[in-house]
Amino acid sequence: MNVFDSIAQVQEQTTKWVREGKTIGFVPTMGYLHEGHERLMEEARKENDKVILSIFVNPLQFGENEDLDQYPRDHDHDVSVAEKYGVDLVFLPTEDTMYPAPLTLNISVVRRADVLCGRSRPGHFEGVVTVLTKLFNICQPTRAYFGMKDAQQVAVVDGLIQDFNFPVQLVRVPTVREADGLAKSSRNVNLSHSEREEAPSIQAALSHATDLVRKGERNPEEIIQSVREFLDSRTRGKIDYIELLSYPELEPVHSIDQTVILAVAVYYEKARLIDNVVMGKDGVSELR
Amino acid sequence: MNVFDSIAQVQEQTTKWVREGKTIGFVPTMGYLHEGHERLMEEARKENDKVILSIFVNPLQFGENEDLDQYPRDHDHDVSVAEKYGVDLVFLPTEDTMYPAPLTLNISVVRRADVLCGRSRPGHFEGVVTVLTKLFNICQPTRAYFGMKDAQQVAVVDGLIQDFNFPVQLVRVPTVREADGLAKSSRNVNLSHSEREEAPSIQAALSHATDLVRKGERNPEEIIQSVREFLDSRTRGKIDYIELLSYPELEPVHSIDQTVILAVAVYYEKARLIDNVVMGKDGVSELR
Repeated sequence: MNVFDSIAQVQEQTTKWVREGKTIGFVPTMGYLHEGHERLMEEARKENDKVILSIFVNPLQFGENEDLDQYPRDHDHDVSVAEKYGVDLVFLPTEDTMYPAPLTLNISVVRRADVLCGRSRPGHFEGVVTVLTKLFNICQPTRAYFGMKDAQQVAVVDGLIQDFNFPVQLVRVPTVREADGLAKSSRNVNLSHSEREEAPSIQAALSHATDLVRKGERNPEEIIQSVREFLDSRTRGKIDYIELLSYPELEPVHSIDQTVILAVAVYYEKARLIDNVVMGKDGVSELR
Repeated sequence: MNVFDSIAQVQEQTTKWVREGKTIGFVPTMGYLHEGHERLMEEARKENDKVILSIFVNPLQFGENEDLDQYPRDHDHDVSVAEKYGVDLVFLPTEDTMYPAPLTLNISVVRRADVLCGRSRPGHFEGVVTVLTKLFNICQPTRAYFGMKDAQQVAVVDGLIQDFNFPVQLVRVPTVREADGLAKSSRNVNLSHSEREEAPSIQAALSHATDLVRKGERNPEEIIQSVREFLDSRTRGKIDYIELLSYPELEPVHSIDQTVILAVAVYYEKARLIDNVVMGKDGVSELR
């Protein structure tokens, strides 16, 4: 396994691979790898000749009040995890490597960004699409892997790939869950014992919603209200939002007659948890 | 030679070529091909295994007062010219093919755009970089060919390639000229007989400027003033601008101690002509 920090090194390697007809699976991360990332690497390893992992804490996607310097880093651990999962190349650039000069261009995200978690993180997805545009051109992937835990990010990346015609296949990987259904998150350790016992009700609420749609409910307001009551009766967590939108367009819907996302964010004492389900109009959850 | 109108067709072909290790030369145009384009195709043909010509009148790069519908088109002629110059693939998409849905992203050009001709064409270079981002991903070129007649466009494209790390080599092709030095342009036919006789003084003024620098002049204001006097005494054309900027950054310079561009635009009765020279601090004109 190679660990490269220069763009030229990576681009030379990927150009060589592409010219040899090799398929490349790409897993972009900010490092501090957890089981979600491991699942992405597993999928990439299964489907491609070569696998690239990038580790870069991208300053552009941090807001003014978000603490870039406090973001956890553990490169030694990350590199050993990558090795274990059969990654062929780790790209670990510095900030100066990725942004050597002031950019001449600025990308703004004019759709899909201003809902769900994006509402409270202005500029976040601009940073995400800018660094991904660079990383796609550096790593030249056949397929890029993203976890559906961040369904909005997946929708924005889908827009990036469609808008700019990147010859890259977006692979949506299901959220990794605990045995009781709670979506895995590094924030789960901040839950109190009783909060941890209640938290699986978030995924249960999503299943409750797909049940309603499967039984014929088509009204988004009714579904949201029912999910709200479901959650209120099962957890003391404070609901941040429950939103039901078209997917991946992330626009309001008046009736469930297309693929939609139901997304939920809940505040606990020391953790804010998010989860979502993407489902067809038949109420069957889907991934692609 | 293939003429394709679908993105999928072109991307399938270029992916195949790339995987076979073929180099691809790309000449993006808005069609209505003239000698400048022919020169680009010649260069691309010399240096690459495969040559792609795109013909697309990109609505995004036309301003509100610029008449998109009046832009001249002659696809039959263009395709026969491409054939003559040994082009392998012509990409001739419709507007609906290139912009099938509202874009989710918007690129703005925050450097290099707001000087020279860009000053009077707000939004123009945004359209250029957006369509080139798409075309680069569709055509997957090894090298892309641009004429130095549009030196500002070349500078903006250089920024695009650097910012986004496109694995594409930008090839700058010298301006094609008449025997008397006048830069070739479809607008030259709109010159009166006497205007046509005076117009070569524009290139002569650029040579006058490189002479001054070669002799040791370092002051941009002095050079601009001298070029202005040179032109005023040799043509009745009205000077639109004479600018001296760093290249390709297109920023003001206080002394000629780096690569610079001297660019000139002159109004005649029925035509506005532009020309430029890019020179090192030794006053020797350079292209790359």
